[in-house]
Amino acid sequence: MKNTVDALREQVCALHAELVRYGLVVWTAGNVSARVPGHDLFVIKPSGVSYDDLTPASIVVCDLDGELVEGDWAGGDLRPSSDTAAHAHVYRHMAHVGGVVHTHSTYASAWAAHGRAVPCALTAMADEFGGEIPLGPFARIGDDSIGRAVVETLSGHRSPAVIMRNHGVFSIGRDALAAVKAAVMCEDVARTTHHAVALGALSPLPQDDVDALFDRYQNAYGQQGATA
Amino acid sequence: MKNTVDALREQVCALHAELVRYGLVVWTAGNVSARVPGHDLFVIKPSGVSYDDLTPASIVVCDLDGELVEGDWAGGDLRPSSDTAAHAHVYRHMAHVGGVVHTHSTYASAWAAHGRAVPCALTAMADEFGGEIPLGPFARIGDDSIGRAVVETLSGHRSPAVIMRNHGVFSIGRDALAAVKAAVMCEDVARTTHHAVALGALSPLPQDDVDALFDRYQNAYGQQGATA
Amino acid sequence: MKNTVDALREQVCALHAELVRYGLVVWTAGNVSARVPGHDLFVIKPSGVSYDDLTPASIVVCDLDGELVEGDWAGGDLRPSSDTAAHAHVYRHMAHVGGVVHTHSTYASAWAAHGRAVPCALTAMADEFGGEIPLGPFARIGDDSIGRAVVETLSGHRSPAVIMRNHGVFSIGRDALAAVKAAVMCEDVARTTHHAVALGALSPLPQDDVDALFDRYQNAYGQQGATA
Amino acid sequence: MKNTVDALREQVCALHAELVRYGLVVWTAGNVSARVPGHDLFVIKPSGVSYDDLTPASIVVCDLDGELVEGDWAGGDLRPSSDTAAHAHVYRHMAHVGGVVHTHSTYASAWAAHGRAVPCALTAMADEFGGEIPLGPFARIGDDSIGRAVVETLSGHRSPAVIMRNHGVFSIGRDALAAVKAAVMCEDVARTTHHAVALGALSPLPQDDVDALFDRYQNAYGQQGATA
Repeated sequence: MKNTVDALREQVCALHAELVRYGLVVWTAGNVSARVPGHDLFVIKPSGVSYDDLTPASIVVCDLDGELVEGDWAGGDLRPSSDTAAHAHVYRHMAHVGGVVHTHSTYASAWAAHGRAVPCALTAMADEFGGEIPLGPFARIGDDSIGRAVVETLSGHRSPAVIMRNHGVFSIGRDALAAVKAAVMCEDVARTTHHAVALGALSPLPQDDVDALFDRYQNAYGQQGATA
Repeated sequence: MKNTVDALREQVCALHAELVRYGLVVWTAGNVSARVPGHDLFVIKPSGVSYDDLTPASIVVCDLDGELVEGDWAGGDLRPSSDTAAHAHVYRHMAHVGGVVHTHSTYASAWAAHGRAVPCALTAMADEFGGEIPLGPFARIGDDSIGRAVVETLSGHRSPAVIMRNHGVFSIGRDALAAVKAAVMCEDVARTTHHAVALGALSPLPQDDVDALFDRYQNAYGQQGATA
Repeated sequence: MKNTVDALREQVCALHAELVRYGLVVWTAGNVSARVPGHDLFVIKPSGVSYDDLTPASIVVCDLDGELVEGDWAGGDLRPSSDTAAHAHVYRHMAHVGGVVHTHSTYASAWAAHGRAVPCALTAMADEFGGEIPLGPFARIGDDSIGRAVVETLSGHRSPAVIMRNHGVFSIGRDALAAVKAAVMCEDVARTTHHAVALGALSPLPQDDVDALFDRYQNAYGQQGATA
Repeated sequence: MKNTVDALREQVCALHAELVRYGLVVWTAGNVSARVPGHDLFVIKPSGVSYDDLTPASIVVCDLDGELVEGDWAGGDLRPSSDTAAHAHVYRHMAHVGGVVHTHSTYASAWAAHGRAVPCALTAMADEFGGEIPLGPFARIGDDSIGRAVVETLSGHRSPAVIMRNHGVFSIGRDALAAVKAAVMCEDVARTTHHAVALGALSPLPQDDVDALFDRYQNAYGQQGATA
């Protein structure tokens, strides 16, 4: 298991750099986690650590209650991200989810502060989200309220991302890379749609076109066997 | 021919980096292709490959039906971009086109999601596009609908770029470099014009000034013999 | 004391690079200062020096009247930042402040030119600012008017940042790093809130939620003993 | 003279990189020139050359009629920028000008496409521009119309920058560095003011405050003897 955890730490550390590269995070905000396949564990960013200082060894290991796992191989005296309870709740209730990402990315959070789901008027959004990106309720941090709201909003929804009212984005994926891709694409389409709304009304994208695009993209895009 | 194809692969690989540099693409979206002069072939980005992982060898060779060309020198077990059919359609029907670019660049796509051609109120736009950047119809991916719409919109039009409704940009050029330049300038003027509209009405640019600027720029700008 | 001052110069020089990295400053605008603990002194950026040319040795030492300190170890024939009087006034009147930052960051300054406090509709803003970011009055540079306005606006306020009308941002912290964090977060939430307002009305964030978030973040976030 | 020209070529080549760094230009748009002190000559960017390919040796030498200067030391078979006539006109008619910059920077050009001077509601703008950034008339490229419009608008005006209707920015300075600074600050305040207008009305900045700020900044800011 140690080898699996070490590999996930490497990957999750590297994926945090993608959040920086795509401008989704400032200072220490934002976090990526990955489930340890076959174990009731996941790895996640430590709380309040600068992206510059993040190393694979600083990524912490938690159980599915969000409690820090102790021990030599789990290492570390760092506290897990303050969003750990939300990640843990998702892993406990969505068995197909292998990665979770949380950001306050600018345009997605603007929709959240305004309190509206991002409407679907772009083929790229139909491809990736299968329609609108839903708006989840406001939930206060500190217990599993946020995690519950994420699970309730995304269960049975095509979208791998939810915009939490007055807060920011949670995205999920079969692994951490897919969840990061969803976070990146969420900000991209939230931004483009924001600028479109500024020009006036959106041009509607008929539901049957949305459905056809989503179906094709999920089944035919990319190289066979590719993760994202 | 192998040398020609290899040189085009180098160029097309490098031009994808320009899409990244100018912020026209995120994740794996966007693609550049180049016709192989004197052959019914073109080279294009493989589907769903990260810009970080793109190498000249990963650029694939297709015939003008958009089918992957097999063989040692064509190499590769990668599938071509999911937009290959649109590129192929353009090469089949526009003999003067040597390069095609597709992006979902932010401001151009905002005009596409709103459903309006980008009006011409900038000398830089008159220079490069000879007037407005036209809006093409919505077309579903999967057959040659997109390619047909691109060809129909751009045939006989001064503009080397079209904004496809609810989708993004296709640009063309006598070679891939010129098509990339058109994609870069399209986003630039779409952005500036968006910000101008946000201030209120655009200041009109009289048609005879547009015509004079377009004529001068196409014939007198740059170094003699330069590509762009 | 020389060692302490040298260490602060290193830190303050490095923190100016953070202003550049986060896009809060252009050309020579903006400045960071740090109090010398236990002495009536602080270190600050020299006036009109390019960020590329800033070195620890170029950071100047001032007394709490904002006068340049002479002498071998204080070194330097550079004049302190033209905002030095404002920094000095803050250090004289706010004993708990160990760092001050001033920027003309784009979105915060847009709120300042419009003349409105940034309303609180984001959990990240409740965390860091405990509510709105207040608007301070217009004050002319040249005496201690700006410093007085900063102190009057921030005294007894939760927010570590103030948006000065028609001007820009002043932020404070227990040390220079905390003040820089406040400047970075101020621009981030000013930007997101600006984009939210562009979509229409803000979704309100109830005061008791703001209070709870602020209390938790100030006491529970990050690693124990961490500065920010 | 050769040494002076070579030094100016170095400086002007380096200053073009500042236009790129501050995001004022895309592709080959934009140009910087510098007068050769004591000679009826200036150096300027060649036409249509990529910023990546610009070297000191590629910077061309022109006389004050905008004609390319031939000869060994002037070197080069490159054509000067298509905006050379405008630069030349400025040097002929404004003896105190030692540097000229032209860009299509985004926000300044948005004001130009809308057709409004940038109003002064920021202390940074009062400092640098002494009030609004004026709007010059539309002028067609090809003769000295643009140069005349720049000179007429800026003569007797405090502002070192003019926003040319439907076009972009021309800025001037006692040397090329000062002109580049004016171009950078012009875009910065055009952007901030654009975002302020999006929030509603601007908060007015009284004329006597504008006057006092301008006077102080021009006489007291920076290190003594510094260029900018």
